[in-house]
Amino acid sequence: MKQEHILIIGAGLCGSLLALRMAQRGYKVTVVERRPDMRKQHQDAGRSINLAFSDRGLKGIKLVGLEEQIKPLCIPMHGRMIHDLESNTVFSPYSGRENEFINSISRTDLNIMLLNEAEKMPNLNIHFSLKCERVDLEHASAVFKDYTTNEQHTFSADIILGADGAGSSVRKSMYLHKKFLFSFSQNYLEHGYKELTIPPTQDGGYRTEKNALHIWPRGENMLIALPNLDGSFTVTLFLSYSKGEHNFDALDTKENILAYFEDQYPDALKLMPNLVEEFHENPTGPLGTIKCSPWHAYGKVCLLGDAAHAIVPFYGQGMNASFEDVVVFDHILKKHSKTNSDQPTRWAEVFEAYQHERKKDTDAIADLAVDNFYEMKSHTANPLFQEKRKLETAFEAEFPHEYHSKYSLVTFHEDIPYSEALRRGRAQDKAILNLIDDGVLTEEMELQEKLNKVKTETEEILHEDELLK
Amino acid sequence: MKQEHILIIGAGLCGSLLALRMAQRGYKVTVVERRPDMRKQHQDAGRSINLAFSDRGLKGIKLVGLEEQIKPLCIPMHGRMIHDLESNTVFSPYSGRENEFINSISRTDLNIMLLNEAEKMPNLNIHFSLKCERVDLEHASAVFKDYTTNEQHTFSADIILGADGAGSSVRKSMYLHKKFLFSFSQNYLEHGYKELTIPPTQDGGYRTEKNALHIWPRGENMLIALPNLDGSFTVTLFLSYSKGEHNFDALDTKENILAYFEDQYPDALKLMPNLVEEFHENPTGPLGTIKCSPWHAYGKVCLLGDAAHAIVPFYGQGMNASFEDVVVFDHILKKHSKTNSDQPTRWAEVFEAYQHERKKDTDAIADLAVDNFYEMKSHTANPLFQEKRKLETAFEAEFPHEYHSKYSLVTFHEDIPYSEALRRGRAQDKAILNLIDDGVLTEEMELQEKLNKVKTETEEILHEDELLK
Repeated sequence: MKQEHILIIGAGLCGSLLALRMAQRGYKVTVVERRPDMRKQHQDAGRSINLAFSDRGLKGIKLVGLEEQIKPLCIPMHGRMIHDLESNTVFSPYSGRENEFINSISRTDLNIMLLNEAEKMPNLNIHFSLKCERVDLEHASAVFKDYTTNEQHTFSADIILGADGAGSSVRKSMYLHKKFLFSFSQNYLEHGYKELTIPPTQDGGYRTEKNALHIWPRGENMLIALPNLDGSFTVTLFLSYSKGEHNFDALDTKENILAYFEDQYPDALKLMPNLVEEFHENPTGPLGTIKCSPWHAYGKVCLLGDAAHAIVPFYGQGMNASFEDVVVFDHILKKHSKTNSDQPTRWAEVFEAYQHERKKDTDAIADLAVDNFYEMKSHTANPLFQEKRKLETAFEAEFPHEYHSKYSLVTFHEDIPYSEALRRGRAQDKAILNLIDDGVLTEEMELQEKLNKVKTETEEILHEDELLK
Repeated sequence: MKQEHILIIGAGLCGSLLALRMAQRGYKVTVVERRPDMRKQHQDAGRSINLAFSDRGLKGIKLVGLEEQIKPLCIPMHGRMIHDLESNTVFSPYSGRENEFINSISRTDLNIMLLNEAEKMPNLNIHFSLKCERVDLEHASAVFKDYTTNEQHTFSADIILGADGAGSSVRKSMYLHKKFLFSFSQNYLEHGYKELTIPPTQDGGYRTEKNALHIWPRGENMLIALPNLDGSFTVTLFLSYSKGEHNFDALDTKENILAYFEDQYPDALKLMPNLVEEFHENPTGPLGTIKCSPWHAYGKVCLLGDAAHAIVPFYGQGMNASFEDVVVFDHILKKHSKTNSDQPTRWAEVFEAYQHERKKDTDAIADLAVDNFYEMKSHTANPLFQEKRKLETAFEAEFPHEYHSKYSLVTFHEDIPYSEALRRGRAQDKAILNLIDDGVLTEEMELQEKLNKVKTETEEILHEDELLK
């Protein structure tokens, strides 16, 4: 057992997984969480209830040996079910390959599983209801306030890992520190989101297709729905706060809310008996992207997960990216430990190597997630993009080893970094759109010939992008 | 004379021009500046001593009727003088058109001219040495601290215009306000800068070509020099803080500094007798880009200039962009006043229209300025880019009305918004590089035919970019 002591701030999804893994590596681990223990006390709203869990997240779960335990929590979603204004539906698979799908999973169930496993470790302790007030970056200590008693507590360790989410106190301490240049951005979309519910049928069944991610794309706004194990769906409305024809500010009465849903989402409205009540009660949340650099300071403190890179939810990759962070961090730590066995960890080198390896990828998924907002809310209803999607699905079905769409590269190819998925995926998208637009892909053409043309055009675009560098 | 009272925070270049213009429009104007009056007290270092003044800045100067007064302050620079490692020089004109050049101008001389003109206005008052502590956004009042007496003063007005630069206190009040979503980014390059001097000759002459912007591109780092009226040049070293083969951290002794300059900038070293002393005495400054949104709040407060959009200096557009801000703001105010004569200004509408019109362009120049960092420090020494530049200069000389390089569009086409210059300029650059790389532009080809090919390829690229939207 190593003597080194790691203080992890945050016991959400990223913090819990990270804590479990660090304990498995033999470090002494202390975890401090702002919220009460979710196993004892129901949490307040304001965070997404269910999440899309896919291959990159699974890597993290495998790392800690929980791949069997997570299976019962997962509901496979094989594609997007697109609902149009006339209540017609079209199913658009995520991939032409059968084994490529994403899963709907409850944030709470997953977090509880990770907390339970973490607490089994003898070298790991978790403290709840302690809010981090500030971090002493140079000495790896942090001051917390106990919500219940108002008392202050100071924790020290060899290093601090900040896994305290988008509103990270650890990151705030770095922002306010002023002794080094800290690049930072918070960028909000004009849209906010509100969670609503499609309840189960009386016998506990699903009121619409269970194994799909439902989308109602409406140009500027959209509704989505993900299934839960109890037969319900969690529905999320993405809508402008105050601009455009429809916006949250304008939906201020029962009449306005119902009229909007009758007009835009008539089939969904029929499935949501508690719509108006929920609409008034549930908060409207912002959609923001956070980036920063450096992620670490003094070889004493390092950020992981949303604390380092909060992203918008439109690629379903937030939790998956955070879990992949833990995998990359663990991999670098392992490499370092091998070459420096019997020596204390040189954390400054580990943190630097981690950011060097990882930041380009979390920057990429942040940008991809914003791209996908535009794709989901409007491109899914655009004929040119629909033709592209149809062609890609055909490629993936007929040539499963030769073609992988941007969505597949990001979601199912956990062996390819996000930055490479972005580079290749964007070039492919551009290539297909160019070829369709130029009328090059004729109806008589064999699918193989079309694929060859797409590949050639993609390589040409990638080459041209290189010239500008 | 209008009754409305405008409080302008900041009497730098942007604040002074804005104040003068608002006073010319008849508003009651109060200006409050953090620093002492530069006409009475020498300013401390840490800001660029001279600046590149070009067509967009000139629009602002014309707006207030000072185009004749500014002429004696300007030293024309017709192109880049590139210095290689062997002390050879190549002159690369900024344009193939003779009347397109930029000017070196002293920040202090220009600011003093604007302050003097502003103070001539009976409806304008300037207060110095008052640091803005915080702004009450909802009530257009601000608290200032007097440096000399430590006393606090509160100023109120109908509106506050924040022209208080990159470290804006007004913007900070918006960031901390928390009642609306505030998107914000500060992004630092890994490079810092340090200002040095090439002094005049003993008889007051210039030690190297006067009418050029000198560049010593060295891949990862570079030196530049701009002429001053007294025969000296202000030299700026752009160098990584701590990374790479050479960096500021490593230049910690006289020997290291001299060895670095002898190795990298031997011809410049000969012109800089006080190098080591200046290197130790002058501060190393950061290079950052700041963006934010919204620029305004409650129809009471609005940001202009660097306070809203600080950029890196590599396009020589920082001051020019700020002056263009004043032109755009004034234009919108004029339009609004015409349609609403005899009514108080609806400032919320003016601010909203101003940001809508302007933000896309300041975002564009921010990105272009970072691009140009890479172009200046390394592309100027890259054969492919040199061939492009040669071709563009030939196009501009032979077809002055048909071709405008990205640099010309940004710098000399003050009638084209930055965002359009970016869109068209990047497509042109890509088109030329593609055509050169593909060997399409053969030596036998007439220049007109080459231009036609570039134009066709550019349109194709612009069309393809549209498809992705």
